[in-house]
Amino acid sequence: MSPKTLKIDKLPTIRRLPSYLQILRDLSAKGEEFVSSAYLADQMQIEAILVRKDLELTGINGVPRVGFRTNDLVSAIEKFLGWGRALDTCLVGAGQLGAALLGHRELNNFGIRIVAAFDNNPAKIGTSLHGVTVFPFSRLNELLKRLTILLAIVCVPPDVAQSVVDQLVQGGVRAIWIFTSANITVPEHVIFQREDLLSGLAVLSACLTRKGPVDTSA
Amino acid sequence: MSPKTLKIDKLPTIRRLPSYLQILRDLSAKGEEFVSSAYLADQMQIEAILVRKDLELTGINGVPRVGFRTNDLVSAIEKFLGWGRALDTCLVGAGQLGAALLGHRELNNFGIRIVAAFDNNPAKIGTSLHGVTVFPFSRLNELLKRLTILLAIVCVPPDVAQSVVDQLVQGGVRAIWIFTSANITVPEHVIFQREDLLSGLAVLSACLTRKGPVDTSA
Repeated sequence: MSPKTLKIDKLPTIRRLPSYLQILRDLSAKGEEFVSSAYLADQMQIEAILVRKDLELTGINGVPRVGFRTNDLVSAIEKFLGWGRALDTCLVGAGQLGAALLGHRELNNFGIRIVAAFDNNPAKIGTSLHGVTVFPFSRLNELLKRLTILLAIVCVPPDVAQSVVDQLVQGGVRAIWIFTSANITVPEHVIFQREDLLSGLAVLSACLTRKGPVDTSA
Repeated sequence: MSPKTLKIDKLPTIRRLPSYLQILRDLSAKGEEFVSSAYLADQMQIEAILVRKDLELTGINGVPRVGFRTNDLVSAIEKFLGWGRALDTCLVGAGQLGAALLGHRELNNFGIRIVAAFDNNPAKIGTSLHGVTVFPFSRLNELLKRLTILLAIVCVPPDVAQSVVDQLVQGGVRAIWIFTSANITVPEHVIFQREDLLSGLAVLSACLTRKGPVDTSA
């Protein structure tokens, strides 16, 4: 695999990596030096062969009858995800969802450091949210450049989402993590991850309407 | 397709349905009677053929050179998702993420009616959050039965997530929408959707580390 790109077929693996990290850090805190793929498979509720395939992506191989070194796996996953270093980030939209993300204790574990928040609400501007100062939108462009922010987390209403994204791209942000049900376009060079909280609810509700879980048969 | 089950290969379609609804409701509010699959494809950033395939699932067919009737599509998608009727729901864990979900204006559009919230924090118990009363955990079992709640939204810390889910299942909840990075098990008859907010961040961060977007080539 080229170090510059990621194959799209690796996405399910990458999406599972934070769950592995959570399990492995728990084990590490308990002083467990080794972990088996069978244990991880049980915790992740997937097949052991898939666990071994997932972990191959990080470059760590297990030792037969011993398993994986817990701390080696933690470091390898963190390194793979670029989460060993601190990544300066801003939050745009300091409403309740934004505040919830800002207070997510796992974000710090994963190296995300939110250095500024932006909102249009006069009651919020100048206040501190989980230790992060809230600035007015009007200072977005200036501060993006001054603070050299690469990643932005966006939690704004759908009707302003595209214009906020456009401003972030103009301000030199390289990656955007946005929570919205609106459809957003970005230039090709920008890394973009959209989370539509309602899409999970759609699956749940469609299943509930049909009075049963999803049928996985062909 | 049996009305009782959903094929797993329809999941990507189902996850897109809330985005279609958002676009269609906007059009409907503007008085647009018809919509073309080309327009929807452009808005959704997917191929028109995929749009037509997605919408087939709802049982609505377009008319050549005219397109789809906007309101028919809205009703068909709502019906497919079971979102036409009101679905009584409770929120377990009334922290910031829970509060953000409770205040999500789209939830009401989609027929989700949160009738009770539960939390262990004495400062929250008895207060009202977006018009919903916060009860202590100790009353969960009693109120689940009294209010005949079918769907629960869970936003609790990972270390208590499994025990909360177990209580909900015992209390007769049929579907659980949980926001956690912890791995959770439920009995087979329970419909279960887990959202790990950090998995999206993992993809973003892995791409950023490799200084480019995901390579979709084979």
